[in-house]
Amino acid sequence: MEIFVYRSGAERVEEGFTAEQLPSLLQDRSLVIWIDMERPTLDDDRLLLDLFKFHPLTVEDCRMDRHHPKVEEFPDYLFFIVHGIRTNTTPERFNTVEVDGYLGPNFVVTYHHEPFPAIDYIKQLLRSTPVPCQRGAAFLLHHILDRIVDEYLPALDDFDERLNKLEENIFSTTRPSNRILEEILSLKRSILRLRRISSKQLDILYRMSHGEFRLISGPALPFFRDIYDHLVRIADLAENYRDLITGSLDAYLSVISNRLNEIMKVLTIFSAIMLPLTFIAGVYGMNFENMPELHTRYGYFVVWGVMIAIACLMLLIFWWKGWMGSGRD
Amino acid sequence: MEIFVYRSGAERVEEGFTAEQLPSLLQDRSLVIWIDMERPTLDDDRLLLDLFKFHPLTVEDCRMDRHHPKVEEFPDYLFFIVHGIRTNTTPERFNTVEVDGYLGPNFVVTYHHEPFPAIDYIKQLLRSTPVPCQRGAAFLLHHILDRIVDEYLPALDDFDERLNKLEENIFSTTRPSNRILEEILSLKRSILRLRRISSKQLDILYRMSHGEFRLISGPALPFFRDIYDHLVRIADLAENYRDLITGSLDAYLSVISNRLNEIMKVLTIFSAIMLPLTFIAGVYGMNFENMPELHTRYGYFVVWGVMIAIACLMLLIFWWKGWMGSGRD
Amino acid sequence: MEIFVYRSGAERVEEGFTAEQLPSLLQDRSLVIWIDMERPTLDDDRLLLDLFKFHPLTVEDCRMDRHHPKVEEFPDYLFFIVHGIRTNTTPERFNTVEVDGYLGPNFVVTYHHEPFPAIDYIKQLLRSTPVPCQRGAAFLLHHILDRIVDEYLPALDDFDERLNKLEENIFSTTRPSNRILEEILSLKRSILRLRRISSKQLDILYRMSHGEFRLISGPALPFFRDIYDHLVRIADLAENYRDLITGSLDAYLSVISNRLNEIMKVLTIFSAIMLPLTFIAGVYGMNFENMPELHTRYGYFVVWGVMIAIACLMLLIFWWKGWMGSGRD
Amino acid sequence: MEIFVYRSGAERVEEGFTAEQLPSLLQDRSLVIWIDMERPTLDDDRLLLDLFKFHPLTVEDCRMDRHHPKVEEFPDYLFFIVHGIRTNTTPERFNTVEVDGYLGPNFVVTYHHEPFPAIDYIKQLLRSTPVPCQRGAAFLLHHILDRIVDEYLPALDDFDERLNKLEENIFSTTRPSNRILEEILSLKRSILRLRRISSKQLDILYRMSHGEFRLISGPALPFFRDIYDHLVRIADLAENYRDLITGSLDAYLSVISNRLNEIMKVLTIFSAIMLPLTFIAGVYGMNFENMPELHTRYGYFVVWGVMIAIACLMLLIFWWKGWMGSGRD
Amino acid sequence: MEIFVYRSGAERVEEGFTAEQLPSLLQDRSLVIWIDMERPTLDDDRLLLDLFKFHPLTVEDCRMDRHHPKVEEFPDYLFFIVHGIRTNTTPERFNTVEVDGYLGPNFVVTYHHEPFPAIDYIKQLLRSTPVPCQRGAAFLLHHILDRIVDEYLPALDDFDERLNKLEENIFSTTRPSNRILEEILSLKRSILRLRRISSKQLDILYRMSHGEFRLISGPALPFFRDIYDHLVRIADLAENYRDLITGSLDAYLSVISNRLNEIMKVLTIFSAIMLPLTFIAGVYGMNFENMPELHTRYGYFVVWGVMIAIACLMLLIFWWKGWMGSGRD
Repeated sequence: MEIFVYRSGAERVEEGFTAEQLPSLLQDRSLVIWIDMERPTLDDDRLLLDLFKFHPLTVEDCRMDRHHPKVEEFPDYLFFIVHGIRTNTTPERFNTVEVDGYLGPNFVVTYHHEPFPAIDYIKQLLRSTPVPCQRGAAFLLHHILDRIVDEYLPALDDFDERLNKLEENIFSTTRPSNRILEEILSLKRSILRLRRISSKQLDILYRMSHGEFRLISGPALPFFRDIYDHLVRIADLAENYRDLITGSLDAYLSVISNRLNEIMKVLTIFSAIMLPLTFIAGVYGMNFENMPELHTRYGYFVVWGVMIAIACLMLLIFWWKGWMGSGRD
Repeated sequence: MEIFVYRSGAERVEEGFTAEQLPSLLQDRSLVIWIDMERPTLDDDRLLLDLFKFHPLTVEDCRMDRHHPKVEEFPDYLFFIVHGIRTNTTPERFNTVEVDGYLGPNFVVTYHHEPFPAIDYIKQLLRSTPVPCQRGAAFLLHHILDRIVDEYLPALDDFDERLNKLEENIFSTTRPSNRILEEILSLKRSILRLRRISSKQLDILYRMSHGEFRLISGPALPFFRDIYDHLVRIADLAENYRDLITGSLDAYLSVISNRLNEIMKVLTIFSAIMLPLTFIAGVYGMNFENMPELHTRYGYFVVWGVMIAIACLMLLIFWWKGWMGSGRD
Repeated sequence: MEIFVYRSGAERVEEGFTAEQLPSLLQDRSLVIWIDMERPTLDDDRLLLDLFKFHPLTVEDCRMDRHHPKVEEFPDYLFFIVHGIRTNTTPERFNTVEVDGYLGPNFVVTYHHEPFPAIDYIKQLLRSTPVPCQRGAAFLLHHILDRIVDEYLPALDDFDERLNKLEENIFSTTRPSNRILEEILSLKRSILRLRRISSKQLDILYRMSHGEFRLISGPALPFFRDIYDHLVRIADLAENYRDLITGSLDAYLSVISNRLNEIMKVLTIFSAIMLPLTFIAGVYGMNFENMPELHTRYGYFVVWGVMIAIACLMLLIFWWKGWMGSGRD
Repeated sequence: MEIFVYRSGAERVEEGFTAEQLPSLLQDRSLVIWIDMERPTLDDDRLLLDLFKFHPLTVEDCRMDRHHPKVEEFPDYLFFIVHGIRTNTTPERFNTVEVDGYLGPNFVVTYHHEPFPAIDYIKQLLRSTPVPCQRGAAFLLHHILDRIVDEYLPALDDFDERLNKLEENIFSTTRPSNRILEEILSLKRSILRLRRISSKQLDILYRMSHGEFRLISGPALPFFRDIYDHLVRIADLAENYRDLITGSLDAYLSVISNRLNEIMKVLTIFSAIMLPLTFIAGVYGMNFENMPELHTRYGYFVVWGVMIAIACLMLLIFWWKGWMGSGRD
Repeated sequence: MEIFVYRSGAERVEEGFTAEQLPSLLQDRSLVIWIDMERPTLDDDRLLLDLFKFHPLTVEDCRMDRHHPKVEEFPDYLFFIVHGIRTNTTPERFNTVEVDGYLGPNFVVTYHHEPFPAIDYIKQLLRSTPVPCQRGAAFLLHHILDRIVDEYLPALDDFDERLNKLEENIFSTTRPSNRILEEILSLKRSILRLRRISSKQLDILYRMSHGEFRLISGPALPFFRDIYDHLVRIADLAENYRDLITGSLDAYLSVISNRLNEIMKVLTIFSAIMLPLTFIAGVYGMNFENMPELHTRYGYFVVWGVMIAIACLMLLIFWWKGWMGSGRD
């Protein structure tokens, strides 16, 4: 548990407080206090219940992971769950991690079971400048949420890049394989998850930024609206990616069909040329006694001529039908 | 019919009451009474009508199964139908069982035609601790509903596992068969049913947890909101599974297409190599008198050479086209 | 036109009144009057306009068939159109028939161009017991609507049975044919029509059962809510059937693909075994003078051996690839 | 520009007025005036601006075609755009034509660039009876709109007929061709356009028939609700047609797949019978010196027997597999 | 930065003001001032913050591109982002460019990072006539937005043309290729983007044209409603194009299937004719000693006759089955 305290007008944010000092700090309404609980212990949970008197169900929500983004208003504080990007996330396995938190009149509490890049970033920031704290707890929360949302962007860029590469692969592959299919499906799943998560966060930020909660009001609203706008953009990109991946699946299936067409054309061309020739050769391999052609002088050569003519004719027909050529374009 | 009575401040929940004692018990507003009707008789139905004076249509709803989750408010009580998981449910045959019930100012009635694990669990709990009753009838109802909802989770895990196995099967199968298809379709149906049921229950819990009903109010609301959150998670998982199973069907169809491609490639490669060779053999099987090659010394061996050369050339072409290789990857 | 009159407190419902008696009967607000117009004449229409003073457009709606379920409130009466199941309906040709009607303070008018089982049933009921009339006109209407809705259930069971049989057919058929496809498509159309009709009726019953209309109020509401619940179930089944029939179409297309795969495997196996053998036979059918093998003693038998070995090898390869076996499962 | 004037109580509608008389006519609030502008000139436009003082943007909307159905209320009048069926419309090319118009307290203005059957019909009607004008301008508008909507019905019947014929074609065609596909796609486009147009008109009539506009009120409402009901039916049919055409596309694709299956079965049956026989013939065409069978007396006939046996066996297998038969059903 | 000032009643719009004159100009509420910032500098940004006192977040939104269309109301001004068509946009790569702006009581500010045809057009217009300014700042804004929306139309025409050409290509192509597929997919993406953008702008114009904002009110509303109507048309076209492109993809996939059918028919016809003939030739190529037919006089010619008869029979069967003919129609 790390505690950051900003005294109104101070030039730096103070650090290094302990849990024991919290009660007196919280009394002072002029302070802005940030309590970050990383890998929280049972003591931390008890603090939330006993000192802050947060509703036991919210503390239980904190302790257990795997909840959905939500925001709930209580008389004296706001409880929220948001999802940040997990550091090891990839386009195939899109993973989010939960941050729970409380916003009070003069404090922000954040609670998370793993180290969190966005939160570390804000800590570094506070060590260098008190600006994020200068306008109160809601503004500090804005900074934290803004950073959490911003960290979605590199993951989105990864999606972008991956989707482009995927499409290239689909059109250039010489052999449609299950591997590409598996990639399409896992990307699709990730994108659908991204879409669901972002639409839920969108809903939360919408409520935060439209004056629904007493603790986030007046001058803070445009700042939360700004985060909301970023989320709109993320949700829109997710929608975009969904269109792209759906297109990729269509493309993949079409490419398979095209290749089947190509394969069948090769087979048909071979068969259509070879079968008649083989038949002709078979005819003159018959052992009838009375087959006049066999005894002519140039019969053999004439037959060769006929066979070559047939082959050329077939090729011409297929070329004319547009079946010949690279067959791949 | 089992009756549980908690007297305010008592250390245990009393049991073993009979229907005759009910009228006097219900008079005492300080008690919390739970009447559980398992495999109810006509006497039980008459009790609901005559003693509790519940609306006859609700009693009829109880008596007949196959209704949808719903909640209805009457002046003195709340009538609800919720669906729990049936014990023998499997991902292929998702089955729910109906629990009907009433919530009054000082009582909860539950009514079900089969034994019900969630209800048995609460009975065991009440035998060991009076905590679920200490805060009134609405809290007792919260415990029961919470348990019913919690019992969806193992069934959801089964879905998870089954979907993963299914996808593995699809990609590793050597022969796409109707069996996999039947499994996909039955899973899909189960998931759609799960989705519909959970979205209806979500609606009920939403109404219960947002203060619509007089009997569930104030401090009880966050607890019902907690059940609501669990249902949101279940509904979200159902949505997730629907994406997965849709993906599986796409995958299955693609895998079939891929295999057809593979089969056709084998056929085409065989035909393209064998047909020209057979033709050549046919040519020299002709019986023309004047076929100079037949009389050369090494004609036969030259023809073998030519045939091997053609076969190699074909293989090279197919290898270059990417048709050769494992053909399976 | 048949007229049923119930006098408050009477033990039976009176019948056999004529149109001339109607004006005086309608004056008496303590009566409950039901006028059923089956195959109505122009006289009946005039009665609606002149005696009841119903809006001319509603009478025109009655006279013409093919309207959608609706309910409209006028100052003194309620006009409604509902759709019952036609007796000759089948899952392939889902057919409904229109009943128009009016509800007044002390009367119900029903108007239909064909005999109607649900209405006949209520008539029989009234001849044996006055119960449906004892609580006023709205209760009588409830009985009629309830019966109309109940008669959907056997039709729904037919759908159920048909869909199960269809799925069985799809998976067991030895030859995918257009007949199954036609059946799927006609079932799908019926189900979509059922779904549209039931969602419209749902809307009407919702409005009737939620106190929107002055003439249906207070104690009658739970009874109309009961019909609404039945309709919810029907709508839900229709949704269910839509999922099933969509699954059937997917299954049908997949089964076709699977069979194509099977056919191509048979073709490929035959070709892959026969073409090389034919080639070998062709080689030794060549007429070169110098073919040493031809003159060996056991050459012929060695060639047979080689050919059998090749055939076995091929079969082994295809067995290993999983292409052999029943090929059908 | 044609002007129709009905004086309250008159027995016929007067005609033949000129633009100059309009100002004085409009003063008289007891008249009902209809000004129909067919192929309007710039003078007509100026009249709308200068005499009626309509908003310039609405006049611009009139002058330019290609707007969407809409209705806008201004303090003294209502401006509307509705779409009628163009006379040369076909199911493949569904075409609508725009009628703009104004409704004032005592006048209706209609404005259209082409002759319009519905409007001509109303003119004929007014020449024979003053009824449509007797209840005021809103009632006159009702008659015009009613007629415009009624003229959709023959076009809908055309759709019906065409869709039935199309489905028949799909199932009976001996050769799936691009022509059927083109027809499906153009019908689908028409139906989607019909659906969009009718849903927009539905919205307008809904607003007109639910008392939103001061100029259409009280006794006129049920009449506009009647048009609304007709539009509901049209929208419902459009929905119906969309289901039908979607089904047709599915059917078409399935029929193609079925035919491919049939073709491949023919190929496979031929190959499976002929390849083994050809192989046997090839074997005994080999020129080995030591082939004992060749010298037996009935060897040739035994081979024929074996070949026929193989052919019959194959046919039996394919018959048993259900591949033989008409192959078309 | 260019500044246009219109003094009430003046005959031309003045130009050539500098940033220094702005404070005094803005004081005069009777002026209509347009400040256009093309490729804005940091000085320009500072002006927005210091002189206009716009909210810093809106200025940041201006500075950064890639936001979504939106409109936000602040006490003294309106901030909006709209998207215009980029000049180099093509149906395959649909590109929009952002214009940010502010509307105040007597000024309009536009801010864009690239030259913008719609804005240049309005500048030219102002140089020739003061009309767009004569009715205040909101009217000036209306002119600008109207022009921006109008410039979508040529791009929409391009879509139209491209889609028609595409469909023609699909049906006339002799070889279904990945190129057409890539074109379909890129067009689809563009259309989906167009649809999303236009639906968002629709939302903004809806809010602007329905009196939500104090600065756009009364007589200006019908003019903004006019832009709204144009956007409705664009959105409707986008919907239309989506139907068309979806139809194109369906068509493309069907055409591929049809061609596969055609290819397989060619293959099957060749095989079904040639295999039996080859078999017969093979039979008479056998070397049995006792083959009576070989020694007959006309055996060879009879065999030819039989083979020709078989070939004709086959052709007849295939012609009767409808497999023969152009095979392409």
